[in-house]
Amino acid sequence: MTEQMLIGVDLGGTTTKLAFMNHYGEISHKWEIPTDNTNEGKNITTNIAKAIDEKIKELHLTKNQFVGIGMGAPGPVNLQTGVVYNTVNLGWKDHYPLKDLLEMETSLPAVIDNDANCAALGEMWKGAGDGAKDLVCVTLGTGVGGGVITNGDIVQGISGAAGEIGHITAIPEGGTPCNCGKTGCLETIASATGIVRLAVEKLKQGVESASELASIYSELGHVSAKDVFDTAREGDPISTAVIKEVASYLGLALANIANTLNPEKIVLGGGVSKAGDILLTPVKQKFQTYAFPRVAQSTEIELATLGNDAGVIGAAWLIKHKGSNSTLNS
Amino acid sequence: MTEQMLIGVDLGGTTTKLAFMNHYGEISHKWEIPTDNTNEGKNITTNIAKAIDEKIKELHLTKNQFVGIGMGAPGPVNLQTGVVYNTVNLGWKDHYPLKDLLEMETSLPAVIDNDANCAALGEMWKGAGDGAKDLVCVTLGTGVGGGVITNGDIVQGISGAAGEIGHITAIPEGGTPCNCGKTGCLETIASATGIVRLAVEKLKQGVESASELASIYSELGHVSAKDVFDTAREGDPISTAVIKEVASYLGLALANIANTLNPEKIVLGGGVSKAGDILLTPVKQKFQTYAFPRVAQSTEIELATLGNDAGVIGAAWLIKHKGSNSTLNS
Repeated sequence: MTEQMLIGVDLGGTTTKLAFMNHYGEISHKWEIPTDNTNEGKNITTNIAKAIDEKIKELHLTKNQFVGIGMGAPGPVNLQTGVVYNTVNLGWKDHYPLKDLLEMETSLPAVIDNDANCAALGEMWKGAGDGAKDLVCVTLGTGVGGGVITNGDIVQGISGAAGEIGHITAIPEGGTPCNCGKTGCLETIASATGIVRLAVEKLKQGVESASELASIYSELGHVSAKDVFDTAREGDPISTAVIKEVASYLGLALANIANTLNPEKIVLGGGVSKAGDILLTPVKQKFQTYAFPRVAQSTEIELATLGNDAGVIGAAWLIKHKGSNSTLNS
Repeated sequence: MTEQMLIGVDLGGTTTKLAFMNHYGEISHKWEIPTDNTNEGKNITTNIAKAIDEKIKELHLTKNQFVGIGMGAPGPVNLQTGVVYNTVNLGWKDHYPLKDLLEMETSLPAVIDNDANCAALGEMWKGAGDGAKDLVCVTLGTGVGGGVITNGDIVQGISGAAGEIGHITAIPEGGTPCNCGKTGCLETIASATGIVRLAVEKLKQGVESASELASIYSELGHVSAKDVFDTAREGDPISTAVIKEVASYLGLALANIANTLNPEKIVLGGGVSKAGDILLTPVKQKFQTYAFPRVAQSTEIELATLGNDAGVIGAAWLIKHKGSNSTLNS
């Protein structure tokens, strides 16, 4: 029997990433298509099916060379049924039967999970996890997402809402309103959006000493999270204060996650994590302060290594391990 | 083949609880012996072996009617090797080979885990868990312990320190020193000791209005956690303020655990949990405030139902499911 291939799909609000890979998670082909969320999102599965069919044809392959499709979707998912409970960006109604529709359009078995969970599985399998079977992945992007892996498998939670690390309450009283309806969520601080908000707050308070960030702000009328990190590397006092504040809340949240789970690794991914040591170093310091001594000694904080591929690789892990046609399925 | 029985042992600093039960977790005999921690704790396993042998003789049973022994120990444990990394109350040296010694003394297979993990497994199997495979158990006693269960199995963590919920940092700056070496741990607030500390702090600040708790304190020179709850039920202003504070920190910590794991249930056990609704109601209110909406709707907070039996029952679960001679072992 020829070894069958896996298809990984990472469905995003504007772009859908697709990849073909083997059972070792080695990508042979990857590409992107725009996500069409018009028509209540009904074109999404059709477009994915067309994209896969076209690529199969282009590569002179046949459909029976594929085990099936693993896919990450932006919202809480019922892993067993493949129903997306609700999602804000794709136009779908609540309880959207994504797996059934995708299987119908593609004639391939499909397994669906939340996109942050897929990223965590990807990092576990081929990325920073490096064999760790207890791993927490935190994605610091426009928002803050998370995936929790214990004993080598993702934690779904009773309603698919495990890993909502961005909605850990970091500021119990008087925090900033969050999209989720609460206030003071970690996402309002440690996301790119949160970092910009904190920076602008401080910039509006007035500047006592020379600040490159203040110059950018007065020139452009806005700053980016990257501006904050770039100027902090040059010693900018405002940017340094912003990062100190972000690191303090993030370090505390990660320490309390680790006090609960003592994972082998906490992997930080997403655009904000690309800041590297200027963020990682103070986060690690605060983590050491707030973690139970035995946890502080054993749980490591590392940067994600797969970048944008984490989602498709983790999605492919799903179909490899949880697909009904999977040869490895127990 | 006659159905074999399980032995559960809950090793505490002053008392060791033992029980015989069947594969359904139904206890047929239970008893206690004092824990002898003299002689570097070397008598502990011998005394347990003697106690089991005597009980077997007394009941006219034979050793081959038993699958083995599951035991909970007060400290971080390596589940695979049965080595206790360190423990403060039993006199043992670090890396104590508890499983090997217990097996040698009793000639029965043994499985060892942390006592809080055993309590969580007990509540999952026969207590408040009621079939829940994703469950967090928090024991509010002299200290605060915890056990985390995902996908029906306990989370150990990379160095056996998962479930250290008592050492979640509740007060990041200026908190009270904790035995663990950190400050502001949940244990310094939500344990019986913490509740008394908060009450005495408030009592020393002086009393504005009539307070039964203040009367007890001026009469006896001390108060208990039970005094705080009892007087709060009568509307005592100081006790009410203490409980409000405890509930706020505990509700926040539980919400953040649930934002990470979305367990079906969070089960509160230990002596403090016996306070019942006077504590549970405000904890649930704060939990609702701080939990991600989808988590607030789906994760339930309940009181433990097994009381002191949780430890021996959960320990027996271990030998049933993880014992090398277990018929159910996969």
